[in-house]
Amino acid sequence: MGAFHNPARLSIALVSGGMDSCLAAAIACRNGPCAFLHVTYGQRTARREHKAFLDLAAFFEVPENLRLVVNLESLSMIGGSALTDPSISVPKFHEVPADEGGEKPATYVPFRNAHIIATAVSWAEVIGAGSISIGAVAEDSAGYPDCRPDFYTAFNRLIAVGSYAGESLRVETPVIAMTKSEIVKMGLELNAPFHLTWSCYEREDAAGGQCDSCLRRLRAFRQAGIKDPIPYVS
Amino acid sequence: MGAFHNPARLSIALVSGGMDSCLAAAIACRNGPCAFLHVTYGQRTARREHKAFLDLAAFFEVPENLRLVVNLESLSMIGGSALTDPSISVPKFHEVPADEGGEKPATYVPFRNAHIIATAVSWAEVIGAGSISIGAVAEDSAGYPDCRPDFYTAFNRLIAVGSYAGESLRVETPVIAMTKSEIVKMGLELNAPFHLTWSCYEREDAAGGQCDSCLRRLRAFRQAGIKDPIPYVS
Repeated sequence: MGAFHNPARLSIALVSGGMDSCLAAAIACRNGPCAFLHVTYGQRTARREHKAFLDLAAFFEVPENLRLVVNLESLSMIGGSALTDPSISVPKFHEVPADEGGEKPATYVPFRNAHIIATAVSWAEVIGAGSISIGAVAEDSAGYPDCRPDFYTAFNRLIAVGSYAGESLRVETPVIAMTKSEIVKMGLELNAPFHLTWSCYEREDAAGGQCDSCLRRLRAFRQAGIKDPIPYVS
Repeated sequence: MGAFHNPARLSIALVSGGMDSCLAAAIACRNGPCAFLHVTYGQRTARREHKAFLDLAAFFEVPENLRLVVNLESLSMIGGSALTDPSISVPKFHEVPADEGGEKPATYVPFRNAHIIATAVSWAEVIGAGSISIGAVAEDSAGYPDCRPDFYTAFNRLIAVGSYAGESLRVETPVIAMTKSEIVKMGLELNAPFHLTWSCYEREDAAGGQCDSCLRRLRAFRQAGIKDPIPYVS
């Protein structure tokens, strides 16, 4: 697994409720004590993702005082995304260009990850955490500039110069170079509880299987030769 | 005045309600169309600062659809500052070390400016702004790492790599190299409405004159040889 952070120090895992951050959290929890941070921002499936967060925090036995759920109202007020603006529809996967390079996906939430990591940095300064773990995946990053490795390099520089934590706090991206099917396989090796996660952008009762996020998830499980444990509408 | 941004493009002015951002906004408004962004975060004098924002937006005739007020609940939930945690008292100015270099002021709000600028970047992506103006002052920055020039350099890099705006959006710090008394003098030259601003960390009815922020403000007006137009408790 490698030492993703100093095991003597507390780590903050960003836990969206999806499978990438579930694996990142599983890795962080193996390395030492973890706090879990979840962010809602008025996205369509916020309640279901929050439930996934609570289920994951319970699974990993995170103490109540090391769980934080924050609502970023600014992102829903600002809109500009199919996830936060009900007047913009979530594209079905057959409407998503195969190569999104350069084109902005309707589901891009402007600069979202900067808000999420800033929240983690503020919390890290107060609770004394030494690392922040995020489940960003470069494979998805063509259309999401705030998922690129360069973004995290730049953010670490920002923390180094702009916080009291300085260089003693780092953002880590343990799954950034993995394909989604590698994430499935490694998750199984580590007993990551994918059955508790949620990925669908559209529905909260059962996954719709129609949006880009469902597509990527289903394809990853198929490529790994494993059945996705969550329910889908038939 | 110089060209702080491309006058053909909309600028977002971060307007806290204090005198530094009042001058930065006055400069931005001279250069072209401006949107005003104000952030509350559960700080002690949030209501009075919000009033100052509304008064300034009215003074500069900012259209309603180009005003945004956002509450960053995460900063009050996380605490760790005398401004957001009622159990930590605001130091009187005689308790503030003359040289704060290296020591964290009780009024430091962890990584606050990163949240504020991230909010502005998200909004800029949606409304198409080309610059963000913040009234950070390096003179104050010994104890506030998120007010240092290096922080803004690092943030511009983050925007360049991590947003769709890329290099077409820049954070500008028009008053960062000025002393507080130079800010007073330039504000008078530009008719910046300092009578509408608020600086006190403690009180909302009249400025208390006891906190570090009042001290800096009063000293600046005294050095500039001008009477501060806002009311103080006697």
